[in-house]
Amino acid sequence: MALPKVLICGDIVWAHEDVKTLLGPLAEVILMDSPSREHFFQNVAEGGKYANIVAIYRHNTSADRIGIFDAELVKVLPGTLKWIAHNGAGYDQIDIAACKARGIIVSNTPGAVDDATATTALYLLVSAVRQYSIAERNVRSGKWKQGLAPAHDPSALTLGVLGLGGIGTRLAHLAHAFPMRVIYHSRNPNPDAPAWAEYFADREAMLRETDVLSIHVPLKKETEGLVGEKEIRALKRGSVIVNTARGKVIDEEALIRALKDGHLYGAGLDVYPNEPEVNPELFTFSNVTLLPHMGTETRESQHKMEVRALQNVQDYLTNGAGKDVVPEMK
Amino acid sequence: MALPKVLICGDIVWAHEDVKTLLGPLAEVILMDSPSREHFFQNVAEGGKYANIVAIYRHNTSADRIGIFDAELVKVLPGTLKWIAHNGAGYDQIDIAACKARGIIVSNTPGAVDDATATTALYLLVSAVRQYSIAERNVRSGKWKQGLAPAHDPSALTLGVLGLGGIGTRLAHLAHAFPMRVIYHSRNPNPDAPAWAEYFADREAMLRETDVLSIHVPLKKETEGLVGEKEIRALKRGSVIVNTARGKVIDEEALIRALKDGHLYGAGLDVYPNEPEVNPELFTFSNVTLLPHMGTETRESQHKMEVRALQNVQDYLTNGAGKDVVPEMK
Repeated sequence: MALPKVLICGDIVWAHEDVKTLLGPLAEVILMDSPSREHFFQNVAEGGKYANIVAIYRHNTSADRIGIFDAELVKVLPGTLKWIAHNGAGYDQIDIAACKARGIIVSNTPGAVDDATATTALYLLVSAVRQYSIAERNVRSGKWKQGLAPAHDPSALTLGVLGLGGIGTRLAHLAHAFPMRVIYHSRNPNPDAPAWAEYFADREAMLRETDVLSIHVPLKKETEGLVGEKEIRALKRGSVIVNTARGKVIDEEALIRALKDGHLYGAGLDVYPNEPEVNPELFTFSNVTLLPHMGTETRESQHKMEVRALQNVQDYLTNGAGKDVVPEMK
Repeated sequence: MALPKVLICGDIVWAHEDVKTLLGPLAEVILMDSPSREHFFQNVAEGGKYANIVAIYRHNTSADRIGIFDAELVKVLPGTLKWIAHNGAGYDQIDIAACKARGIIVSNTPGAVDDATATTALYLLVSAVRQYSIAERNVRSGKWKQGLAPAHDPSALTLGVLGLGGIGTRLAHLAHAFPMRVIYHSRNPNPDAPAWAEYFADREAMLRETDVLSIHVPLKKETEGLVGEKEIRALKRGSVIVNTARGKVIDEEALIRALKDGHLYGAGLDVYPNEPEVNPELFTFSNVTLLPHMGTETRESQHKMEVRALQNVQDYLTNGAGKDVVPEMK
């Protein structure tokens, strides 16, 4: 009997051996090598080389060639396909409703990215609070301490975590080491939250007590622009915003206004609404630390993510279901 | 009876009220306002406005006008002077032997700077390990992720702390939150070290297991060039060095050679041998994060340091001795 076909759609960098170990005995592994969306569409159709696949391992790098998994793409996927194992915590490049309508389950890789992304948030927090991005540019341009005023110790500040999932919880632990006071808002209290993390059912009440706001919610229709004019103004004057989630969760124009009029002391951003484009106005604020969406970019995390996504495929092939089904499909 | 005279020699920025509260009832407080070393020398002499002072509060900012407290300066201090309360953890701008010879006790401000300096070391560690200094320059020059390869998670690495005093211990706690493995070398085990911090009596043995070396020893004759060619080459290939102590503790030429030939993956430096000058060769290495000696520059730490130095003066005036006598004089 022929083995079921699994499509690897996007990069595998670290887990080549794991592909063999985890999927080798169970599946015929096919590499997606389409140079264009048209080519992909032709080949998922009857008779194409991706026809009859039952599962897809997906990485965002595939979007460079075939585009995101929007409704149009999901519509043409073969009827045999039942599982998309996305490599990543955020799966905003996949139209979940379209998958649901076709009976395709989507999994992601929670947990695997917590360390790497929380470390990035910690870096942006320290950089913005201590003005270290300006300080570095100063040293390199011969200005030494010019224009730098003593900042605050993190231990004097309150961290407000918006969305206390895996990444938010890891950041909370890192910040607690200073120690910062840690408060958070999620739709519901996280039962795994450490005892010292104070839950606020009311988002604005949390924002009013926050010195550093760190954003850890996924991008969905309901979270687009979640941190807007009203939320930013609810923060104390002199606060800092850190975003390692998705650019569109913040209303960028509102952020820029608040940086411009000094309501915000600074910001640390790893993500932007239209990556890899960065609004050049952000370059005009001295105390903004900018990274090129590198939250998860460590060898260990990328390996963990690849393995976790592959394990979801393996579990689907052996048990009929992977462990990390996305919340909307549970 | 006239109150004893205390000289404030260098900046008080945050503790103006504390000067009044702590010293007001006990002393006549005189501000050092000499524009030059000559003027200072004239005024510490008999009949000058600093004659008969019994204690000095000293901050490194005074060096801009009157120079450091070297043997020449210490020699001319009045015979009434018994205490120099230095504001700072490092007191390498004071000739301790010359003070000892004249029966002048020197105190510093240990503890007060731990939070702020350990935060700086943590920032430099994350920046060098994750290549975030390059990444920031990339974003600002439109290069996005170009030239960046996935780095390591701190949790995959071992932190070697050279000198586990107050600052080193704070950094150990911050790094343990990832968690990194934490190892350390000091002349003797620190009885207050956390149980998970592994002591190495042999410095080279510690270096051989270190991925990130962070330096926390004071600058003295014995520690000048302490981290030299041999020590750097004892580190694993691909290691990172972080220095928030004093520039001269590292042999800068050896550091530069190791960055050049790739033995070191990167470095994070807050201090340099000839501050505020920075060896321009350091700018040529992409993965070096450079700060303008800002380890202690937070409002809270600077306030704590000022108060702690003033308390040493107060304790001297009331009890005949302050708490923070420097180790060489204990």
